[in-house]
Amino acid sequence: MTGRLITLEGGEGAGKSTLLAGLRGHFDRIGLDVLYTREPGGTPVGEAIRALVLDPAHRGIAAETELLLMFAARAQLVCDVLRPALDAGRWVLCDRFTDASYAYQGGGRGIDSARIAELERIATAGLLPDLTLLLDLPVAHGRARASRRGDADRIESERDDFFERIRAAYLARARAEPRRFRVIDASQPAEKVLGSAIDAIEALRAGKAT
Amino acid sequence: MTGRLITLEGGEGAGKSTLLAGLRGHFDRIGLDVLYTREPGGTPVGEAIRALVLDPAHRGIAAETELLLMFAARAQLVCDVLRPALDAGRWVLCDRFTDASYAYQGGGRGIDSARIAELERIATAGLLPDLTLLLDLPVAHGRARASRRGDADRIESERDDFFERIRAAYLARARAEPRRFRVIDASQPAEKVLGSAIDAIEALRAGKAT
Repeated sequence: MTGRLITLEGGEGAGKSTLLAGLRGHFDRIGLDVLYTREPGGTPVGEAIRALVLDPAHRGIAAETELLLMFAARAQLVCDVLRPALDAGRWVLCDRFTDASYAYQGGGRGIDSARIAELERIATAGLLPDLTLLLDLPVAHGRARASRRGDADRIESERDDFFERIRAAYLARARAEPRRFRVIDASQPAEKVLGSAIDAIEALRAGKAT
Repeated sequence: MTGRLITLEGGEGAGKSTLLAGLRGHFDRIGLDVLYTREPGGTPVGEAIRALVLDPAHRGIAAETELLLMFAARAQLVCDVLRPALDAGRWVLCDRFTDASYAYQGGGRGIDSARIAELERIATAGLLPDLTLLLDLPVAHGRARASRRGDADRIESERDDFFERIRAAYLARARAEPRRFRVIDASQPAEKVLGSAIDAIEALRAGKAT
């Protein structure tokens, strides 16, 4: 029996961390053993790549370099963490995955999605989430929230239109794969957001399409 | 007028550093302004990637991750160093380039060369060297030389059959592109190796095929 991969996506300040904490509580209550990981990162080499790619000192990083680094971290995560856990029947909740590359490096940086699809074949060998929770929020709203957190990393320091393109790319992916995506209005109170996420997860557990 | 890109390739202990020093002397003597760089590296983010990928602590790095990291460094080098220099008419001598990925990650690690070609399209946008000097040497000979240098990095610590596959992959590429490659017998004395390299470079300067 294979496990299930749930991914969490969304722009800056969409409330991923708050939702993650809520979902941990839910999984504890129902006694489901879930592995939590994140991208870029989740492995020693992946975390080293994360530090490198988010470092504000690397402001001049080329779009292609950023894209290749994200997929380098992803290849290691799939090989060392995701595949073994799923093969062992575990559920995995991953904070960002391949959709983030289509949104950030595709939508945000303008890289052709056909190229991203080529990298996806190399790095993930076709591994797709069973469920993707997309926290959607107007850009201004999310950035106001994120700015309260303090120092911005290299990607958080981009301009508004960059984040508008990311939001549009995420929503386009959700429209293209409505069975995999659950789009959640992240401007709602945190309990409502958590409730929507739990509904989608329970539908997945019950074996229904979301 | 566009410049010329010369790349230097070869396995461990083939004498690239010695040849590089000799070529610097030659270029100084003839007054040719040459930019020297290396892979992985050559840019701040590329050097950070180099440190990461060669770190013996990252022994469990996946083949796909290593491949993507090499191309990430390469994309930055092409964008920030090689293209601007060549467009400005400069000559560039680069210690390793894309052929090394076909040899090390393709031949050595067994990654399909069609996948490497996909990454080449993304990272280099078709930039090919005008001349590639391949220092060829029996594996045992090269490793004996390299071991005298002391501590081996993560890639240098691989087994002999890994380096046999690398050598075979390099030679196959040279056979496939005989006009671009000059294969030099690196078991010859250093002055002979340098002489062969200078012959090939002078032929390129004279506008002749090598």
